Formats: sequence, structure tokens, C-alpha cells
Amino acid sequence: MTPKHIVYHIPVCPFSQRLEVLLALRGRRDAVEFRVVDITKPRDPALLAKTRGTTALPVLETPDGAIIKESLVILRYLDEVLGAPLLRRSDPEEHAVESMLIAREGPFTTTGYLFVMNQDPARRDEFNGKLLSLYRDLNDLLLHHSPEGPYLFDGFGMAEAVFAPIFKRFWFLDYYEGFSLPDGPDYDRVRAWKEACMAHEATNQVTEEEIVKLYYDYALGAGNGALVEGRKISSFTFEPHWKDRPWPPRDKYAGSASDAELGLIA
Amino acid sequence: MTPKHIVYHIPVCPFSQRLEVLLALRGRRDAVEFRVVDITKPRDPALLAKTRGTTALPVLETPDGAIIKESLVILRYLDEVLGAPLLRRSDPEEHAVESMLIAREGPFTTTGYLFVMNQDPARRDEFNGKLLSLYRDLNDLLLHHSPEGPYLFDGFGMAEAVFAPIFKRFWFLDYYEGFSLPDGPDYDRVRAWKEACMAHEATNQVTEEEIVKLYYDYALGAGNGALVEGRKISSFTFEPHWKDRPWPPRDKYAGSASDAELGLIA
Repeated sequence: MTPKHIVYHIPVCPFSQRLEVLLALRGRRDAVEFRVVDITKPRDPALLAKTRGTTALPVLETPDGAIIKESLVILRYLDEVLGAPLLRRSDPEEHAVESMLIAREGPFTTTGYLFVMNQDPARRDEFNGKLLSLYRDLNDLLLHHSPEGPYLFDGFGMAEAVFAPIFKRFWFLDYYEGFSLPDGPDYDRVRAWKEACMAHEATNQVTEEEIVKLYYDYALGAGNGALVEGRKISSFTFEPHWKDRPWPPRDKYAGSASDAELGLIA
Repeated sequence: MTPKHIVYHIPVCPFSQRLEVLLALRGRRDAVEFRVVDITKPRDPALLAKTRGTTALPVLETPDGAIIKESLVILRYLDEVLGAPLLRRSDPEEHAVESMLIAREGPFTTTGYLFVMNQDPARRDEFNGKLLSLYRDLNDLLLHHSPEGPYLFDGFGMAEAVFAPIFKRFWFLDYYEGFSLPDGPDYDRVRAWKEACMAHEATNQVTEEEIVKLYYDYALGAGNGALVEGRKISSFTFEPHWKDRPWPPRDKYAGSASDAELGLIA
């Protein structure tokens, strides 16, 4: 049996999901063994030693024991190590266009996470406006390089693998912030792209229900498995399973529901 | 004659210098025509139309008129379009290690620029500490993947092309903030790397004198050609030439020297 690559991850994390999307698209789900890390518990010292002290996930361990960090670095590594044909564009100019779009993912993701974690109602318009400006920027780039769409090039590619999991994560903004893209030409092209990304079968690892339930603590300002004041159990806990819990309250500014109300106590 | 790629740039900008470093290393300085943009004057409307409204530099225009933005995207594009042998590592795992190092450049550069632009003496220790923590992180990665050095791999490569211009830019921290790397094993490996990067002949496009004189306004908190209060001429002006001006005062917290004291009035 070929020694596998190992990815240590949080199953629902978008930075890990994009690796699963790539493997699904390339028909090589077998090439990686995913090992689950429970971020609500102290990190395993053996894994901490491998990562030389850092806790960000995902990390990849190669068959010869090398550690690769950073979601986008791992993504490109897997694409290369699986061999031709690569998911990334091979033509230099097309690869540059694809990379320009991918370069926008960092600020886009950061803005969405800051928005969902915001606890000050007076700042909602500010975050909403910032996120919309980033959507308009994506719209402009897509309209220029791929006016007909829906994808940046002829099919679901590397840029789509990078963004699709983020678009699905942002279900938490629809739910907890009532976010929606306005109508009109400033948003129509990116809306079509977003919808095509989210509808593709390679991106079906998560559902809206799972995201909304697991990320409830983010909506209360507590990220990465941290506990909300007055609560004893993280919304990211594996037990009870999210399917067995009720949908959380939408109004994040009204204070936290209790562990019992969230179905976190069996 | 082969149609050239055109790069619109500020000659002293590190994000442009790394393109020149790559071309020098590959012996293909002829492949790109550099066109100078004076950031102290309003942007040429023709260029603004090409970039669809954005003003960040450098931007590259391909022979067929396509516009590529983002320094690192342009860098990788040029490497690919010039053909084999590429400067980037070709082995997937080595490329991933190289990319992990390159991924650290963004926060590193941002921290150094915020430090030089800081105007609050009470925050100097905070910026100094943050920059040192990023140096320790680079030190750890280099020590792990290339304990002997001086480079990450066997020669000056893509990661060095990315960082060398930033290391040279940070002459402004040595001068205006008295920054220096402490002695000891937390910094010795990155110090050797930094020195090797800066000493390489492919990185000789700028001198300490030029950086210190041109970036004086940054040290007073005014970036991108903006004017410092009470001054009429930017330290980035092309006339009078920086060689004909005196070295600026080191004490950035004492207020701005006048245009006349800076030699900005002929």
C-alpha cells in the first residue's frame, strides 16, 4: 500500500474543505488520510511537536514526515504531487489571472469572519459595507476575465476550490446577520459565480444546517473552540452531534442561549 | 523585435525590485520594459483605465494587453513565462517549503511599514517586539529546513527574491528606529539568511542612502507620495535627485525637517 499523506484538520473548517474539494475533483480522495482534531480540547503533544508549536489547522504530513502548513500552500502542493493534469491553470497568463482571484480570498475571508464575530450592533453597517465592496471587486474581476461565466475559466477550477468553502461558511452571515447580495450589475456576475461554486457536487462536504449550528459561538465572538461566557460546552463539540441539536437563535446581539437551549447537554 | 512585457512601477518600490531581481537572476533583464510612475503626481488616466481604477503598483501589461496585478502574482508569472529552468523549486515538497516561507512575507512587510510609519513613541516597543517575533518565526523555519544555509535551498531562489528587497527597505528601520537583530540562536539563522540575501549581486538595484532619503516621509507617517504637514515637496520626488540631498535627521519623533533642510528645494 502506498504511504498516504495525512491531513490533521477540523472537519468543518473551510481551509480544510478546499483540500477535500480538490481531491474530489481530481478523483483522488484516497490520496489523503484525514485525522480529526477536536479544537475544544487541549492539543495532542505529539502533533504539537510535529508542528513545532503552532496550532493553526490544517497541516499536512508527507509520507516521509515533512510538515506543510498554510491551507493554500497545502492545496497547491497536493495538486502538484498528484501529478498531471493539474487543477491549476497551466498557461502562465491564465495562471496569473487565477492567482489574482485567489489573492482576494484572504481579505474576503477575514472580513466575513470579523463580521460574524462582531458584537457591536453599531458596527454592522461598516462590516456589511466592507464585505459588499469586496464582492464588487470580485464582480469586476470576473466580469473582465470571464463575462459569460459561470466559472473563471471553462470549468470548476482552483479559484473555485479556494472560494467555494468560504461561500458556504458565509451561510453564517445569511443566518446571523441577514446578509444578502443586492440586485444589480455590481453583483450579478459574482452572484452567478458564487451560486455555481456552491452548487457543484465536489463541494457537498457541509450543509447550511451544520455551519449555522457549529459556528454559533463565532456569532457570539468566540472563535477556535473558545467558550462563550456563561457556557460550558462549545458549539464545535462533537457530542451531541449537530443533527440532534435545535437551530440556534438568529439574534446574536441578544446574548447567548444556554447550553441546554442549544441542545449541547444530552 | 519580440513585443515586450511592460511593468509600470515606482523604481525604488520593493514590490517592483523583486521583479528586477528575478530578471537579473534569470539573465533576462531585456524581457521587460519598466515604465516609471511618479506617485507624487496624479495618475495618468490612460494607465488608470488599463488598471480599471486601482492605483497599486507594480502592474504588468502583457504583449497582448492583459493587465496582471499583485507583486507576487507578477513574479510567478514572469518566472513561468520566461520558461525553464524556473527560479521557483520544481519538486512539489520543496516548492511547498519555499511557499511557506514566502507566505510569511506579507505580515513581515506590513509590520515593518507600520513600525516606520508609527508616530507614537509609546508604541515603539510594541512594534519592535512584533517584528522580532516574526524574525524568530523565520529563524525557526530556516533552521528546520536549511540548518546550514545560508539560503533556503542550494542557491539564491524565489524566497530570497521575495524577501531581499524587503530586507533592504528595512534600512529605514535601522536608521529611523535604531532597529537591530539581537545576538543569539533565536536570530542567528535568519541573520545569516538576511545578510546573504542582501549581499547578492542580483539585489543591487538600491542603496541604503537612497532608501533612507526617499522614505523619510514614511518615517513621518505619510505613505505613497502623500505630503507631510507643513511641507510642499514629497521625499519621493525625482527632482532634486536624492544624491544631491543631505541625509535626513534620524529623530523622526522630533517633527519634520523643512523642504529646504531636506534639500528638496534646488
